[in-house]
Amino acid sequence: MNKVVIFGTGLIGGSFALALRKAGAVREVVGFGRSRATLGEALRLKILDRIGEDAAREVATADLVLVATPVAQMGEIFARIAPHLGAAALVTDGGSTKGDVVAAARANLGARLAQFVPAHPIAGAEHSGPAAARADLYQGKRVVLTRLPENSDAAVARVQRAWEQCGAAVSHLTPEQHDEVFAAVSHLPHLLSFALVHDLAQRQNRDLLLSFAASGFRDFTRIAASSPEMWRDISLANRDALLREVRQYADELYVLYQALERSDAAKLEQIFSEAQKVRANWKQQ
Amino acid sequence: MNKVVIFGTGLIGGSFALALRKAGAVREVVGFGRSRATLGEALRLKILDRIGEDAAREVATADLVLVATPVAQMGEIFARIAPHLGAAALVTDGGSTKGDVVAAARANLGARLAQFVPAHPIAGAEHSGPAAARADLYQGKRVVLTRLPENSDAAVARVQRAWEQCGAAVSHLTPEQHDEVFAAVSHLPHLLSFALVHDLAQRQNRDLLLSFAASGFRDFTRIAASSPEMWRDISLANRDALLREVRQYADELYVLYQALERSDAAKLEQIFSEAQKVRANWKQQ
Repeated sequence: MNKVVIFGTGLIGGSFALALRKAGAVREVVGFGRSRATLGEALRLKILDRIGEDAAREVATADLVLVATPVAQMGEIFARIAPHLGAAALVTDGGSTKGDVVAAARANLGARLAQFVPAHPIAGAEHSGPAAARADLYQGKRVVLTRLPENSDAAVARVQRAWEQCGAAVSHLTPEQHDEVFAAVSHLPHLLSFALVHDLAQRQNRDLLLSFAASGFRDFTRIAASSPEMWRDISLANRDALLREVRQYADELYVLYQALERSDAAKLEQIFSEAQKVRANWKQQ
Repeated sequence: MNKVVIFGTGLIGGSFALALRKAGAVREVVGFGRSRATLGEALRLKILDRIGEDAAREVATADLVLVATPVAQMGEIFARIAPHLGAAALVTDGGSTKGDVVAAARANLGARLAQFVPAHPIAGAEHSGPAAARADLYQGKRVVLTRLPENSDAAVARVQRAWEQCGAAVSHLTPEQHDEVFAAVSHLPHLLSFALVHDLAQRQNRDLLLSFAASGFRDFTRIAASSPEMWRDISLANRDALLREVRQYADELYVLYQALERSDAAKLEQIFSEAQKVRANWKQQ
């Protein structure tokens, strides 16, 4: 690729740029962002060749545009670039939810919609910002593409190729499937983990409780140290699927509660055993 | 100490023996257990000097007896040793719940009750059995003693000293406090983690879901790979406190559910932020 344009040069966008560079897959990376300081840092870290000044001109001649801002800002960026996007340019994104991003694209990309191939790189980390970006962030990680009916096979293949050049293994889901899957395996656990810490944090004896918390608590609540703003946005963006998941989880918890209330040892062991087998056999892909 | 007698030579009992030996704190370790094979393995691994044959005789001349079997079996062991326990011998245990162990001691130790100083070493591990035992298992870990009103200060001090010789930092709680604290910071998270995996395990699309689960899921559910039998017993042993915790957690979850249902961004961010701050500032002791 001759030129890649990145909106949002933090962990996701910065790592994408560093990985493509390292693979020799791009000649020039141009970055846009809300903060001049962040862009300057990205330039110093050699994430960018140039800080972009005129988005209209840059996206007219880009091979690929990555939108790696918080998802709530993507609609505005789509609207900004749509009138100027070159006919050969493709667009992808780094958002953790897809239904809302696709809706924002449909509302704002107009005739350029077919050039947008949505993506979710599954490579979260506790840290953020350009300094957290790493050329190997996507190495061996999964990236889910949620292609649109409007996308050509060629467009999907080119975007897939770019993520693969970053070292990622690409999978395909529909946007709806994506949001249902991640509501269950990611958004729900985050909500449950925040809920446990918040529950304990409100207690009068919270310091005593936390002083005896050990490695089980540590791992269970690691994700409760995640960004509150990001998880507020993800929860709202995937609200319907997440509400369904919370309801189903509450039903599951009630079954356990009832078994415990009637001291039903067999039922408790059955539930724990089924979970234990599935978890022990699970391998992260 | 001249002689330490251990009932249950697995992870907890075996590590206690290895640590005391390494500290030069004991001349002879004698072990009892339900399985000849396990005792033979403990002997080969130099956890034991001898496999015990006659519990009555051994506990008559022991300095310290550690009961490190599953808690459900402790009552029977207390009953077996009570008539023969030497007047100078102290007893401690390695159970994860204390109310039930204290009740079993009160029911079975009779006139020897004052010689029993209950303990909970907070040093769980995924593995079990003599092969998992390590001389450094308790190094820098916490051990909670839940002394009885009947215990003398000297008895408590001697048991505390033994655990400290294993490298542990000893804290003190009442048995009731202990069970309330661990219901909140350990038993509840285990139940919640088992519940999430069981919830997903029952789905028709479970393989698809699990294939996209990543590091958040991995850490949140690590404790769902724990022993189902052990957690069945812990749940039942600490039933009342755990039921209270599940009810309180369900209330917390309902607050989050309602905030999400009405798309209350401020409330979600407030809850997530409070949790995030507490978790980020927490340090494992």
